[in-house]
Amino acid sequence: MPRADDNGRGASWTAEHGLAMFREPATALIRALDDVFAGWGAEAGAERMSFPPLLRADDLRTLDYFANFPHLGAPVSRIRPDRLERHTTAATDGPVAADDLVDAHHLLPSAACYGAFLHLADTATDAPVLITTVAQCFRHEDHYDGLRRLWGFTMREIICVGSAEHARDHLERHHKRLALFTAALGLDLARRPATDPFFQQDGARGIMQRLAPVKEEYAHTDGTAVASMNQHRNFFGERCAIGYAGKPAYTSCVAFGLERWVHTLDEHFEGDLRAAAEAVLRAGDAGDAG
Amino acid sequence: MPRADDNGRGASWTAEHGLAMFREPATALIRALDDVFAGWGAEAGAERMSFPPLLRADDLRTLDYFANFPHLGAPVSRIRPDRLERHTTAATDGPVAADDLVDAHHLLPSAACYGAFLHLADTATDAPVLITTVAQCFRHEDHYDGLRRLWGFTMREIICVGSAEHARDHLERHHKRLALFTAALGLDLARRPATDPFFQQDGARGIMQRLAPVKEEYAHTDGTAVASMNQHRNFFGERCAIGYAGKPAYTSCVAFGLERWVHTLDEHFEGDLRAAAEAVLRAGDAGDAG
Repeated sequence: MPRADDNGRGASWTAEHGLAMFREPATALIRALDDVFAGWGAEAGAERMSFPPLLRADDLRTLDYFANFPHLGAPVSRIRPDRLERHTTAATDGPVAADDLVDAHHLLPSAACYGAFLHLADTATDAPVLITTVAQCFRHEDHYDGLRRLWGFTMREIICVGSAEHARDHLERHHKRLALFTAALGLDLARRPATDPFFQQDGARGIMQRLAPVKEEYAHTDGTAVASMNQHRNFFGERCAIGYAGKPAYTSCVAFGLERWVHTLDEHFEGDLRAAAEAVLRAGDAGDAG
Repeated sequence: MPRADDNGRGASWTAEHGLAMFREPATALIRALDDVFAGWGAEAGAERMSFPPLLRADDLRTLDYFANFPHLGAPVSRIRPDRLERHTTAATDGPVAADDLVDAHHLLPSAACYGAFLHLADTATDAPVLITTVAQCFRHEDHYDGLRRLWGFTMREIICVGSAEHARDHLERHHKRLALFTAALGLDLARRPATDPFFQQDGARGIMQRLAPVKEEYAHTDGTAVASMNQHRNFFGERCAIGYAGKPAYTSCVAFGLERWVHTLDEHFEGDLRAAAEAVLRAGDAGDAG
């Protein structure tokens, strides 16, 4: 079975500059993982939705995105119309110069759930809303590390909007679901509090979070966090004006980094990703939470 | 059944500024379409692969990307480190100003097959190589129109690398496959020559193409092109140094724009996307080309 560490075209996956390539059977494993996690959402009553692949800078500002982590952002621009010509000649090389770019009205998402909350903006409900979605997400990092830390990655989320109790129960349900899944896989993940990538560590919310942790993650033995359980309190309910029973809704989400699962299962199954995919599908059915 | 034209949150899909949102059952239809088209690839012997979600500007230059359509490109930048601070305060609004962006070394893909050819660069083969892949693609357009013309869209491709004959046979096989599929769906698509979006109309290759068409597309009765069959001759073989039997390989690809299929089937099934998804899965199996 080809391993990634040969880093050649024979490898089942490679990652360069934070961007990954997958061959079979890694593609089958990613599909299996996504089917299992999305299936947990569907089983809990979540609707499968898909949100715009780019988000408006203005909308992100509403969510304190720039206040908290402007450094992670990936603004999407285009070449200035008056500078197109210099690019049509072979003389130019290297990157597209900043001078040639127009203002960026949109950014690539850094998490799958933003699209859901922005979609629900200015709505109100008296029943909890569950949504599952998957998105290509991007975060600029100081360094990249195989599938453990990518610039572009795939995040499956299961999102809950409702009362504080709904939001808490949603996470509890998935703590249990995940425990059954990892037990069936024979995988030992450590549950630990985490500083939320939603909020910069030296920001006000980062401080609040260390006082009362709202994010927990599950980490492989090498420290790779493969899943997180996020309690947003009524932050998105307030910022997006999403009402539940006459007040700003509480929200929570369960997030899975699919490429990090491939990394972890690649280790766990000693490079046999086909066996990993089969085990994931079997384990996904184990202990149906009903 | 909610229709998109109510443009509210009840709609199965909406599209705004070239960016689309999908609910059930539209998400199930997209999944069914992708499964069917990817299945045709697998049936022909294609490997399911996934390529980096961003492409290097330098690599795209090798493929004449900027010479042919710099106006379509979506360069991905980040905020200049020395300008981060002005974004952490709520004072800023509107887009991320061009002055605050760094040079863009990467762009979002405008077609799914680029990643495949760049992946195969500097390799040689004596047997045809078939790959199927799906990608989020982006093209800046002058205007957007529902799901018919999006800024961000999903393209499934089945790619062939080999001799001129392999490349031609690959397209022939899929012309037949598609005809069986559309017949089973009762869908009337017009086969027509197309100017290739790979090449600007006034460019040298655009002229060559009008002399000897290398791209054909299938259009719905309202003119929406939902599939294209692309003969690249040995262009990618030469530019990416992909060898077949000692010479630059010939390549071809079959491409499906998934959102445009949703648009077309939404019309064809009069808004009943659940019925459309079921019909797609049934029709996908019809007339297995073996």
